[in-house]
Amino acid sequence: MTDADKVFSDIEAIRAKAPVILSITNYVVTNTTANALLALGASPIMSHAVEEMAELVAISGGVVINLGTVAPEYLAAMDPAWTAADEAGVPVVLDPVGAGASMLRTVTPLALLGAHRPFIIRGNASEIMTLAGDSGSAARGVDSTAKTDSADNAARVLSAKYSCAVVVSGEKDLVVEGAAKVRVLGGSPLMPRVTGLGCTATAICAAFAAVNKNPLEAALHACVTMKVAGEMAELKASGPGTLQLHLYDALYNMKAQDVADHIKVVR
Amino acid sequence: MTDADKVFSDIEAIRAKAPVILSITNYVVTNTTANALLALGASPIMSHAVEEMAELVAISGGVVINLGTVAPEYLAAMDPAWTAADEAGVPVVLDPVGAGASMLRTVTPLALLGAHRPFIIRGNASEIMTLAGDSGSAARGVDSTAKTDSADNAARVLSAKYSCAVVVSGEKDLVVEGAAKVRVLGGSPLMPRVTGLGCTATAICAAFAAVNKNPLEAALHACVTMKVAGEMAELKASGPGTLQLHLYDALYNMKAQDVADHIKVVR
Amino acid sequence: MTDADKVFSDIEAIRAKAPVILSITNYVVTNTTANALLALGASPIMSHAVEEMAELVAISGGVVINLGTVAPEYLAAMDPAWTAADEAGVPVVLDPVGAGASMLRTVTPLALLGAHRPFIIRGNASEIMTLAGDSGSAARGVDSTAKTDSADNAARVLSAKYSCAVVVSGEKDLVVEGAAKVRVLGGSPLMPRVTGLGCTATAICAAFAAVNKNPLEAALHACVTMKVAGEMAELKASGPGTLQLHLYDALYNMKAQDVADHIKVVR
Repeated sequence: MTDADKVFSDIEAIRAKAPVILSITNYVVTNTTANALLALGASPIMSHAVEEMAELVAISGGVVINLGTVAPEYLAAMDPAWTAADEAGVPVVLDPVGAGASMLRTVTPLALLGAHRPFIIRGNASEIMTLAGDSGSAARGVDSTAKTDSADNAARVLSAKYSCAVVVSGEKDLVVEGAAKVRVLGGSPLMPRVTGLGCTATAICAAFAAVNKNPLEAALHACVTMKVAGEMAELKASGPGTLQLHLYDALYNMKAQDVADHIKVVR
Repeated sequence: MTDADKVFSDIEAIRAKAPVILSITNYVVTNTTANALLALGASPIMSHAVEEMAELVAISGGVVINLGTVAPEYLAAMDPAWTAADEAGVPVVLDPVGAGASMLRTVTPLALLGAHRPFIIRGNASEIMTLAGDSGSAARGVDSTAKTDSADNAARVLSAKYSCAVVVSGEKDLVVEGAAKVRVLGGSPLMPRVTGLGCTATAICAAFAAVNKNPLEAALHACVTMKVAGEMAELKASGPGTLQLHLYDALYNMKAQDVADHIKVVR
Repeated sequence: MTDADKVFSDIEAIRAKAPVILSITNYVVTNTTANALLALGASPIMSHAVEEMAELVAISGGVVINLGTVAPEYLAAMDPAWTAADEAGVPVVLDPVGAGASMLRTVTPLALLGAHRPFIIRGNASEIMTLAGDSGSAARGVDSTAKTDSADNAARVLSAKYSCAVVVSGEKDLVVEGAAKVRVLGGSPLMPRVTGLGCTATAICAAFAAVNKNPLEAALHACVTMKVAGEMAELKASGPGTLQLHLYDALYNMKAQDVADHIKVVR
């Protein structure tokens, strides 16, 4: 099977199984990541109510823990959710939004990682470098000033330390697991001008994790899907506003040929 | 008057009066349900601040209580808001999002219904069956795995018990009040691929409730309006992303002829 | 330099510097105001976590304090953020959403204004009149029933009292600072049918404040940018849903000629 075939096979599995994806995520992207998951074929549920975490994890095929909103009422649900996921064997995708921009955004993902094993960590270069303790991380708010390539070593460090796949999103996505390293090119230069497309990539990682137990493949397939959807959307978009809507349409309409036409994987 | 004439007469009343609709709702749909209400002609306000509930209810023509976010800071406002609505005679539409998916999502709407009378309850088949105590409800996250028809009896039970109209949304909508039963067909198969269109239907129910004191009619007219808007939007959409935006456009542009052309009511 | 040249010069500065804009804002507009800021070229971050306020303010070029969600967990961050901004000399734009609709929405901005000096206050006519103590303010939910012109005097009072620029948004925008008064015409009648475009104007004010230390100019340039974007978007829109997306596209694509073609400033 080609990479494109493998990606599309997972997409078909998501569409067939409609896995529930539980997201504890930030209030900027609840709507948009839910729409992306629905468009792809998954069944999203968003919550930060501690009381229901174990029950929701039990029906989920994947869990997103996204640190975009670090207010206490959101944080309180994360450890219980992850504990439930550990016990149920449900894969967790961690998004350390804004790591490096504040102490709270740096220590919170590290504290969670001290207690739990992620399936995938996905962030931008600054966030990944911050988690790896790289002093050149250059976080600036939630946007990265560092290039993906500069996070190469940091991604390896994190992957080794936490035994997970690591995705560094950027103009080129970098996917690392152990000794394996893959780059995914493509997408659209409009994508960084839409809020939460990084968070959307995280959510899509969780959907692939629900159907593919290999963290490197799940992460890679999610990155390819986002880049392919971004390229398809750009053909119809006149700016970041229209891009976002056409990206959902692309996730919904994506065919095997679309993946084959747009995939750009470099090993 | 035909059904279409009655629906459009209520739409004209909403556009003329611009009733304030107070929503205590989940953070996935605050933006999208506000946009739908504005597009239709109502004046939305979203809040979960207990301190202002009575004042906001007092200026509202309808209140939405939506259980999509069941965190304590959201739940705390619901009983006070409903109590204020009871006293002021403002109709309340209840949306038991995810009832059956967790204990909290099941017991919370039941506790509210134990203390207050709703004007309309709107949910999907699983949610309505859960509230009615039907063991075959098959909730799976916030999406229903049950068909609308299987909630037929549950809707009757709830309508009788709480003296309200009950809407079961699905491929076919079912509207029940006492002995009356109406089905609304149409819409678009893309609609379940947009997050929060069920919550949007709930909000639209509250807008109709603000101008029509008959719960069956208000519920029916809301369902027809959503199905008509969905069909109009589908004609311009290429997927769920573009559908959502064209749905707001359709709510804004909807003319008497559009309702007449697209309405599908089965008694 | 013409007004159009000045506006576009500031837009170019925003695009070049990508200032971080910290927003403590309501959960209806987190996504949409972030998208507007990104489309314009700024770098938004949304938070209400008290623990990180000082750190985030320190990297910000402008701060938005928006009272659309007045729940305690949101309010708690506002005074600390503003205190940090005072100390760091970062301009703060205040949006008193729904002032007059509830006691809490009236007293909260007044309490903040008692302790801190804003760079710009932006609201609709009812909100500005409420803050100025004008009994004819006629708030009705979060929408204004008063015309911009009736807030003329209230805007002057607030500007004098708090030594800031005041924007009254409406069919015509009014910008006041001290003795200066400017009106901005244009835009689209669809704009009030999109939720949160007032909040978007507030966020855009903060982006201009980050590159222009003159509050009157920053406020004026933000109003012009919104009106120009609204006109550009209306040319491609078929209703409020599509307008919103094309408005982001317009913010992203806006050229000097677009500003020159659409600007309507009356002194």
